[in-house]
Amino acid sequence: MGYKILKEEDVVDYVKSKKLLNGKEFSVKQVGDGNLNNVYRVVNEQGESIIIKQALPYVKIVGDSWPLPLERNTIEAKALKIHGKYCRKHVVKVLYVDEEYYLMVMEDLSNMEVMRLGMIRMKKYPKFSEHISSYLAKTFFYTSDFFMDPIKKKELVKEFINPHLCKITEDLIFTDPYYDAPRNNINPELLSYLKNKFWKRRYLWREASKMKYKFLTEAESLVHGDLHTGSIFANENETKVFDAEFAYFGPAAFDQGLLLGNILINYISFEGKDFPKDKVQDYRQFILTMIEEIYEKFSKKLRKLWKKVNDISFKDECFLDYYLEKYFEDMLGYASVVMIRRMHGLAHNIDVDEIEDLKVRSEVQKLILDMATNIMMTRKHWKDIKEVTEYVKSFIF
Amino acid sequence: MGYKILKEEDVVDYVKSKKLLNGKEFSVKQVGDGNLNNVYRVVNEQGESIIIKQALPYVKIVGDSWPLPLERNTIEAKALKIHGKYCRKHVVKVLYVDEEYYLMVMEDLSNMEVMRLGMIRMKKYPKFSEHISSYLAKTFFYTSDFFMDPIKKKELVKEFINPHLCKITEDLIFTDPYYDAPRNNINPELLSYLKNKFWKRRYLWREASKMKYKFLTEAESLVHGDLHTGSIFANENETKVFDAEFAYFGPAAFDQGLLLGNILINYISFEGKDFPKDKVQDYRQFILTMIEEIYEKFSKKLRKLWKKVNDISFKDECFLDYYLEKYFEDMLGYASVVMIRRMHGLAHNIDVDEIEDLKVRSEVQKLILDMATNIMMTRKHWKDIKEVTEYVKSFIF
Repeated sequence: MGYKILKEEDVVDYVKSKKLLNGKEFSVKQVGDGNLNNVYRVVNEQGESIIIKQALPYVKIVGDSWPLPLERNTIEAKALKIHGKYCRKHVVKVLYVDEEYYLMVMEDLSNMEVMRLGMIRMKKYPKFSEHISSYLAKTFFYTSDFFMDPIKKKELVKEFINPHLCKITEDLIFTDPYYDAPRNNINPELLSYLKNKFWKRRYLWREASKMKYKFLTEAESLVHGDLHTGSIFANENETKVFDAEFAYFGPAAFDQGLLLGNILINYISFEGKDFPKDKVQDYRQFILTMIEEIYEKFSKKLRKLWKKVNDISFKDECFLDYYLEKYFEDMLGYASVVMIRRMHGLAHNIDVDEIEDLKVRSEVQKLILDMATNIMMTRKHWKDIKEVTEYVKSFIF
Repeated sequence: MGYKILKEEDVVDYVKSKKLLNGKEFSVKQVGDGNLNNVYRVVNEQGESIIIKQALPYVKIVGDSWPLPLERNTIEAKALKIHGKYCRKHVVKVLYVDEEYYLMVMEDLSNMEVMRLGMIRMKKYPKFSEHISSYLAKTFFYTSDFFMDPIKKKELVKEFINPHLCKITEDLIFTDPYYDAPRNNINPELLSYLKNKFWKRRYLWREASKMKYKFLTEAESLVHGDLHTGSIFANENETKVFDAEFAYFGPAAFDQGLLLGNILINYISFEGKDFPKDKVQDYRQFILTMIEEIYEKFSKKLRKLWKKVNDISFKDECFLDYYLEKYFEDMLGYASVVMIRRMHGLAHNIDVDEIEDLKVRSEVQKLILDMATNIMMTRKHWKDIKEVTEYVKSFIF
């Protein structure tokens, strides 16, 4: 095919040839880190702008030794379109897809901020729980067997078989962090804790492997697959999810679990920073309320959507009650594995890694790893999300 | 494409043109019931023979109003080849596949008997548990994430997306039997029991729906999808599985569950027949032992295969212990739903339907429906298969 890497100097010609933006003068700026994709922001004379994202055939972080199929760009565009169909307000809009160049054009959200960057400065997003709970409930429900025609759903499962991206998750989230794997990225100050404590928790590894098996086998709904606060643009009024190249039909609770885990990392990370105690407590209270609201609004919205269940086997709300128990347990399991992988796996979060003193950082990492262990091992036994937030508050506040 | 239905008079020319069998003179006989497929047995002068199976574009039982994609023939052939690769001795051999005619040629097993026909006459198959436990352990293990490369496995999942055949199972096994559905085929003598008792068991329907949800979403391994005693040729020395058009990546325990349910139907069916009491008890004891042996040998063989697990997350036998608990529970759930569907769903078993007196037949059906209900509701709570057979024996012997 005609794939070639679009360099910064090629972008203007490309934009003109495809008539992606009005005008004659364009400025182009590379905005992504270029690890897996080239991402450009293009602006015309009127200040109108678009984002171009093109898949690269390898993962830069490890050189070109880790090839990744370009088709992930097509999968991402399709996933964003399907999620956008059901939750227009909270999914980045795809404007154009070039399946030859494995490239897509999206609306520019530069007026917003990546949520993680706000949260490390204790920025509050008052509408976030309302928005993301809609996103979670709708993208799950409308792509699940509870709503979809089972024949059409299976055809869609087929289109979203995404083995190479899933393999990254299987390795980096569910496997490497549980032993001294070469790809781990370990804070030297944390190493003795890992060796003497964390890696001795065979019971924990077994539970993580149960979650991995679910990730490998449960094709429940079209999940985003990498929903953390770095995949979300947010401000006071808006919330937009992007970066869906890990999308596939997987466990429904995976997205909310990953999001929860990332929020809990942020919650604990302030332990290693110099913010005033009262500010931290205020922000932590905001986070706890947000965590409760996300799940409670999600389940309320799902219950409302349940009226649209077509399948006579699942219509009864009793089935939803049962289903939510499973979902809740799985969500906590996925929250736990993501908290763990972000501490000493290959890819970390800046929430913790911006703590420069490695000794202090390791203390925060230990807290997070211990909390994640507790959440994993107890995930079957919580009555509701408020019990979980109570536990978190009692763990540290 | 060039698909056309191969009529009996076309078969000889087809066999000659494809050189499927040596010789000049062939006799042809239609051997299947022709409901979903045309099946012919072709014999040459030397007495050598083959079986030709061609998919029909509709289900005859309901006229051509229920179209079924011809591709199921290709899926069946592929499934038999994969299962045959891992368990050569107990899978019918595929000799030739014609993807244009949606037709495949198989070895002729007429020297053997369909197992169901033997079991209704209380025929014993002394090697069956040894054989089928190998089939169950190997076809599961080698097509699961415990053995396969995760990328290759997902590509295979994609090839085996089989939505139309799965829909039949979803409807006929998991849905229709739980309410007064038009497609049900109800013994009039059973109707008041269904209305006053069985269909009031909402708790049972909910559990059946949990099993349905697993069937819809759990892509664990390449299952046969319709493994009952009518899909197995057997004699004293051999066991061969055939009829795999329902194959897809589904719950690993589905096959063994269906088989167990069918065996239990046979076990109870003698209640409505005129065999001498001592003969029935002798055969029932044989069945109970066979049920125990199938599961015990299966789990023993799986444990042996576990040494070949490649994935570091699952290598530990502790994981197998956990996994077998889930498998066992699911197996009992699937056994239950198949016992139920064969009583008053669309398609029955002759084990019970050969009982001509409808009143007597309904008494047997009630016993089976009650036992299936008990097994479903208690499936989480058995220590091992011997407890289940003890329960069955105490229920009726």
